[in-house]
Formats: sequence, structure tokens, C-alpha cells
Amino acid sequence: MKHYLGVDLGGTNIAAGIVTAYGRLIHKASVPTLGERGLRSVVGDIASLCKKIITDSGVNSASVVSIGIGSPGLCDSENGIIIYSSNLRFRDADIRGELRKEIDLPVYLGNDADCAALGENIAGAAKNSNFSVTVTLGTGVGSGIIIGKKIMNGAFNGGGELGHSVIYFDGEPCTCGRKGCWEVYASATALVRQAKTAALAMPQSRLAENFNHITAKAVFDAADYGDEAARMVVWQYLGHIACGLTNIVNMFQPETIVLGGGICAQGDKILTPITEMVAAQVYGGDLKTDIVTAKLGNDAGIIGAANLAI
Amino acid sequence: MKHYLGVDLGGTNIAAGIVTAYGRLIHKASVPTLGERGLRSVVGDIASLCKKIITDSGVNSASVVSIGIGSPGLCDSENGIIIYSSNLRFRDADIRGELRKEIDLPVYLGNDADCAALGENIAGAAKNSNFSVTVTLGTGVGSGIIIGKKIMNGAFNGGGELGHSVIYFDGEPCTCGRKGCWEVYASATALVRQAKTAALAMPQSRLAENFNHITAKAVFDAADYGDEAARMVVWQYLGHIACGLTNIVNMFQPETIVLGGGICAQGDKILTPITEMVAAQVYGGDLKTDIVTAKLGNDAGIIGAANLAI
Repeated sequence: MKHYLGVDLGGTNIAAGIVTAYGRLIHKASVPTLGERGLRSVVGDIASLCKKIITDSGVNSASVVSIGIGSPGLCDSENGIIIYSSNLRFRDADIRGELRKEIDLPVYLGNDADCAALGENIAGAAKNSNFSVTVTLGTGVGSGIIIGKKIMNGAFNGGGELGHSVIYFDGEPCTCGRKGCWEVYASATALVRQAKTAALAMPQSRLAENFNHITAKAVFDAADYGDEAARMVVWQYLGHIACGLTNIVNMFQPETIVLGGGICAQGDKILTPITEMVAAQVYGGDLKTDIVTAKLGNDAGIIGAANLAI
Repeated sequence: MKHYLGVDLGGTNIAAGIVTAYGRLIHKASVPTLGERGLRSVVGDIASLCKKIITDSGVNSASVVSIGIGSPGLCDSENGIIIYSSNLRFRDADIRGELRKEIDLPVYLGNDADCAALGENIAGAAKNSNFSVTVTLGTGVGSGIIIGKKIMNGAFNGGGELGHSVIYFDGEPCTCGRKGCWEVYASATALVRQAKTAALAMPQSRLAENFNHITAKAVFDAADYGDEAARMVVWQYLGHIACGLTNIVNMFQPETIVLGGGICAQGDKILTPITEMVAAQVYGGDLKTDIVTAKLGNDAGIIGAANLAI
């Protein structure tokens, strides 16, 4: 039985694990990234971590056939080069070349959001779908598109940026330079921003009580408590999420949309209204796409990265 | 050498032709659709037209291996059934079954916009691209997505509706039931509507002279003449087109986007500013997708339909 190493190279931590061909994670571990040390040091740590995981997992080292790496930023998967990552401060980083000096295994590279989407498709919430889209509502809106169990990221490795699709023409500025991107309205960051605006307008709201420390969870909690301002903010926020999801359904019509990110801990409380909103406006009036929450959490990136090889 | 029949089943006319494996249209002809007569009569005319085309083209009838049909509306390609078409007033129309009674050839079925996109990909403006998106700016905004030289229309045959992606949250109502769809701002219909609004606001504009008969071409002509209101309307219109195209590039990143529809007769006069606008806002700042105008006109639908078999 073959085994595959998967590495989720994050801005804060390097998480890696050993995975079966069916996407079962046998063993995992992590170390801090400390990307400012530069590519060679980071790659050294990746190599050590992978070797340690092989040993600790107890699998026969001869059964380990590849290393897959999920990296933030723009990746040249064909040549194994991280073209640019602001998180890691890497530019034209030949991670495959460097890692091959340390470990004699084929090295695969993909974008981290794509890897997370692949992981959910192979072994998580979309494992019965050939065609799924994973959308992660976090600091920004990350996304990955899987068609035929493979990553679809455009003709030049830079597609699949669903968060950077404008839903408000000439709307609020986005970090990408456009105005009105979905990310500006549907990220967890957006929820907090909108809650702060509401708190200023309605100082009697619970949202105003802890103004400088509002979190996405606190907004949901205040809404659950019955706070009017918070309920309004949440309702509007879910409407923005549903708008972008409907766009995705109308354009791609995947079998499954997987929602990830911290706010998905809210579960059916957000999934039910979002699904109803999408169903009410989908083209043709018949929503066939399942909308579900992610199952694998942070492991999705490791499992997906390992699966780059398959 | 094999030959393939392609039928573009329109609301007004049935256009059909005989095509080589490389997408060369050898001979074509058309008859009125008169869809109100019902499926059987329409299919009878399709069969007669196909037989006439085989005879008139001079190809050996034994070399003709299939019939492909492009139909408006929602199609079940697998079973050869037009599920619903408002243009043709068909519902659950078993066009494959009926046509097989008349001609003993395999019958393939696809959506007409998808067929036009496939035709441009096989033999037209995107023939060197594996991955292209065709957007037709007409009464509405039609679209077809080709990945790996195959139609990508979602997991349930209903995707690829790029015109029904919201770019103005809570904007003007769309025929699909949503508000603010790209189609409402980027179709030729939208250009005329916006010109009428401008003409009412600026009655000294050339647009006001022939108010009840404003066409998309008249708006471009007035802008060329230097009419301020028309220039403003055209500029805003091109901005809306560019917004939706940038969304497509960020999401799909195809090799080529093909623009079709009457307004593409404006050529570089619209292509140049649109491309500049997309390049200025594309994610990552590097526009790799070519944006071009369609080459095959109405033949795209025939050639694409014929290619459904290949």
C-alpha cells in the first residue's frame, strides 16, 4: 500500500501528514514556519518534519511515494515554483528544487486553498462529488474548484479566485485593487466591519459593549441573544454570502459547495437561511447543488496536498 | 472522411449544415422554425433539411455519421430531451426520439449558447485554446464555457449562466428573478435602455432625436459623432462589460474570451478599452487571457452542434 506526504505550508505553521490513497490521514505534526528565515531554512524544516512523520507513523518508508505541498499565493505547479506569496514573503521560490536536495521523492505543488478544496473533495464534505467548490470565509474569501476530482485553476494557474468577483459594482475597496468584491462583504473580516458600523449607529446594541474586540462569533452570539442590530447585520451578511454562492451555482453548477472557515461552526443556523436564499434566486428555480459545511478543518490542506500526486 | 450534421434550432429559423471533423462547414441551409406547430412538425422539417443538405453538399451519404442539435433553453444532453425552452414553447420534448424515427443516425443535443461557444473553440476565434469562454451580448447575455475542448455546463446541465451573475447587489430587476445580474447591464438591450435614460435626462443629445428607435448601433454612432450623452453611456456600458469579464477571468482564467453579438461589429473600438479596463483590475495584475471578437457569426452554432458528436 502506497503512502503520500502532504504539507500545508502556512504563514504561521507548517503542518504535514502522511495519507493513504483514499485520503485517510494516518499521522500528522507541525512546526512554526518562520518564513522570514528564507526558503532554504523553511525547506530544511519541511524535510525534517516529513522524515519525523514517516518514522513516527510507523509506515514502511519505502511505501512513501511523494510529497505534495500546498502553499499560499500564486504557484507554478508544473515547475514546482512559488511565484509569489505575500504571507511567506517568497518570490520565485524553487521549493521543489530545494526539497529534492533533501528528500529523494517527487514533489508536487499547489495553492493552499486549492489543496483544501481537493482534500474536502477526496475525503471530506464533498467526497461523493466529482465536481465541488470549496469557499472558505475567513480573513478573506478563499476558494478552490474541483472538476472531475482535479483542481481547476484556470489556464495559467491563477484562476479560481471566487472571492474577487465583484458583487457590488463600484462598491467598497478590496485589497486586490477592485471595488465591491464578494470578499469585501462575505469574509469574517467583513462581518466584524459591518458589526462595528452598526454598533456606531446603534450605541445601545450589545455590539457596542465590546467595540474594540468584536469577533465574528460575538456578532452571532449577540444575534442569538436577540440584539436587533446584530440580527440585522447577520441577516445582511448571510444575504451577501448567498448572493456570491448563487453566482457560483449559476456559473459552475457544482454538485456540492463546501463552506469552510470559523463561522461555519454556526452550522445549520447559517446553512439553512443561506440555502433558502440561494434556492430562492437560483437560475431556473431548481437548486440541485448541495451546500454543506467543511468536515476536515485544517486537515483538508494536508490531505489535499498529499493528493496532488494522485 | 467522416461528416457531421449540425443543427442550430432557433426561435425563428432552423439553420443546419454539414461539417468536417475539423469544423469546416461544407454546406448549409435554413428553414423557418414555426415552433408553435409542435415538436413533431419541427422535427420533420429538421429531418428534411438534413437530407436536403446531404444531397446538395455532394458528400457521400454513408460518410455522414451523426446529427448534433443546439437548442435554446435547458437540455438533458444525456437523454436527448429539451427539458424546457420558452423560445420554442417546448417542455420535456424528446427531440432525439422523434428525430431517430426519421433518420437512422445518432442524435446529440446541447444548449445553443454552449454549441456556439464550442464552434468558436473548434474552428473560430478560440481555435487554438483548450479553455475558452464565449459571451454573446445580445437581447440577453449568453455564454458557454469550453474546458479541454468540451462543454462545461455544470453537474446538472444547467451551469454556465454567466449573464446571471449579480454585479450590482440589489440592482435592477432581471428576467431571471434576481436583481443586478450582469445581463441587466451588459446586454445590447441594456445599452439601449441606458441610452433612453440618458436621452430623457439630456434632451439636446442626438440620442433624443430618434428616441423610440434607438438601437445599440445608433448609440455607438452617436458616440463616434462626439455626442456627450452617448459617449458617457458607451463608457459606462463598456465598464459594466469589463466588470463581468474580469469576474470571469478571476474565476475561470480561460486562455481566451470570445465576445459575440451584434455590438462586436464595433471591433477594436470596444475591444481595446474593454481589454484595458479588464487588465487594470484583474487579480494579480497580469492579464493572460486573450479577449477577442467572435469569428464565425451564426455558423458557430451549426459547427458546435455538429461537434457535439466528436
